[in-house]
Amino acid sequence: MWLLDVLHTIFSLYSKLADCSTRMRSIVSFYFCYLLCLCLGIACVVFVSIWNSQWRGGFAWDGSALQFNWHPVLMVTGLVVLYGNGAVLYRIPLTWGQNKLPWKLLHAGVMLLALLCSILGLCAVFDFHHTNSTPNLYSLHSWIGICTTALFTTQWVMGLAGFLLPCSPMSFRKLLKPAHVWMGGCILILSIVSCISGINEKLFFALKGTTNGTVPYGNLPPEALVANSLGVLIVAFGLVVLKILSNQKWQRPEPRSEDLGYSPLLQDDS
Amino acid sequence: MWLLDVLHTIFSLYSKLADCSTRMRSIVSFYFCYLLCLCLGIACVVFVSIWNSQWRGGFAWDGSALQFNWHPVLMVTGLVVLYGNGAVLYRIPLTWGQNKLPWKLLHAGVMLLALLCSILGLCAVFDFHHTNSTPNLYSLHSWIGICTTALFTTQWVMGLAGFLLPCSPMSFRKLLKPAHVWMGGCILILSIVSCISGINEKLFFALKGTTNGTVPYGNLPPEALVANSLGVLIVAFGLVVLKILSNQKWQRPEPRSEDLGYSPLLQDDS
Repeated sequence: MWLLDVLHTIFSLYSKLADCSTRMRSIVSFYFCYLLCLCLGIACVVFVSIWNSQWRGGFAWDGSALQFNWHPVLMVTGLVVLYGNGAVLYRIPLTWGQNKLPWKLLHAGVMLLALLCSILGLCAVFDFHHTNSTPNLYSLHSWIGICTTALFTTQWVMGLAGFLLPCSPMSFRKLLKPAHVWMGGCILILSIVSCISGINEKLFFALKGTTNGTVPYGNLPPEALVANSLGVLIVAFGLVVLKILSNQKWQRPEPRSEDLGYSPLLQDDS
Repeated sequence: MWLLDVLHTIFSLYSKLADCSTRMRSIVSFYFCYLLCLCLGIACVVFVSIWNSQWRGGFAWDGSALQFNWHPVLMVTGLVVLYGNGAVLYRIPLTWGQNKLPWKLLHAGVMLLALLCSILGLCAVFDFHHTNSTPNLYSLHSWIGICTTALFTTQWVMGLAGFLLPCSPMSFRKLLKPAHVWMGGCILILSIVSCISGINEKLFFALKGTTNGTVPYGNLPPEALVANSLGVLIVAFGLVVLKILSNQKWQRPEPRSEDLGYSPLLQDDS
């Protein structure tokens, strides 16, 4: 009998170790993806800043082309990098054992910063167009871009109302959560689409060859190489963020009582 | 005692009915999404064809601008519409009770047709560039587009090797399946990015105002409205397909034995 007991103990220890090893592997692969996400995000901000300061003449807020330069920098930083980092916050295993409330507030805060950057980025381009009597919202890039920012604003307001205000009914929060998660992914895809079409359009405008004394886009001057690489980095960043968001194993475990999982600001779960 | 038995029977009947109703709701909402996907797909093909036949002068294969017109039509039809429809095939509940093999072959066949359309679409633009001494693969649109087609080709070949050839080892198929599903979604996102940046670029090239005697893009002539709407339809189609692919409830139930789930051509499961 004691032999059976020993075998049973060895077997249960082995299963626990195997379980532990699977969880460790999952956590290590998460942090690899998260590190990649951070590095790609930093690279995006560096590349868009270098492109606009080095080749597009830098920044100003005077209605000139230098004001326009804020548009790509703020949209890439806000709508892609800050947004993506805000979206994956809950997936960091380090935060799982802790009270959810500070992370909820950080998620809302990062998203608000991302939203403010995007709105400022839109102001930059509208102001530039106004000064130069250029019509607004005619290109496909602008149609997709304005829809993205409008959806993002709605998403932020709905998130505040549903997940942070204590007066929102539980049934509304339960209904909102899957829609909030799904819409979050859609907004990121729309942001990537807007950024890539915008960078492509800007390069055709800026690198016209003899018409404006630049090396034409077709000859792939250093500026085109940097801006095209920025586009590739944005796509890579977006796909890594979507990978993190879609992996079921990396989702924050919710408390058993479903209701607690949707608790608002003043009734937060642990 | 008999009262308890009756109550138990009523309760189990009620749970079965509730289960049935949940499944029915899930199936009805799937078919609503699938119908939307079909309608949006048809609308994309109609819009891209009307745009290029009505406003861009129609089609030819002679190195002229009329040859270029095949490029948007074939890319949207192949890389977006056929691809998206091929991707959601396994999700149709009608096919679940049936042998998987014909659906596997149909999936591979639709994807092959999509790939051939994409390659032909690339030939159209390369040939047009060659005739007009325009450099190839310099724009961000072309960088993302060529990566998309290369990834799609790799995905198709890997899918054929892993899921249809009987000689592929089971371990390879198990490893390949999640990667195949994930890469499938990524390729669709890249296709959407490529199409939107391409349509945006084409409209700036085509509607230059006084330079080539057209109504400028900024004045939103009917052509711009149709092509911008095509862009919106492509984005909507892509998001509906991604919604269908990401919903766990709509996944084809695999047989209990995991091995059967990855069976190749000659060892197909039911």
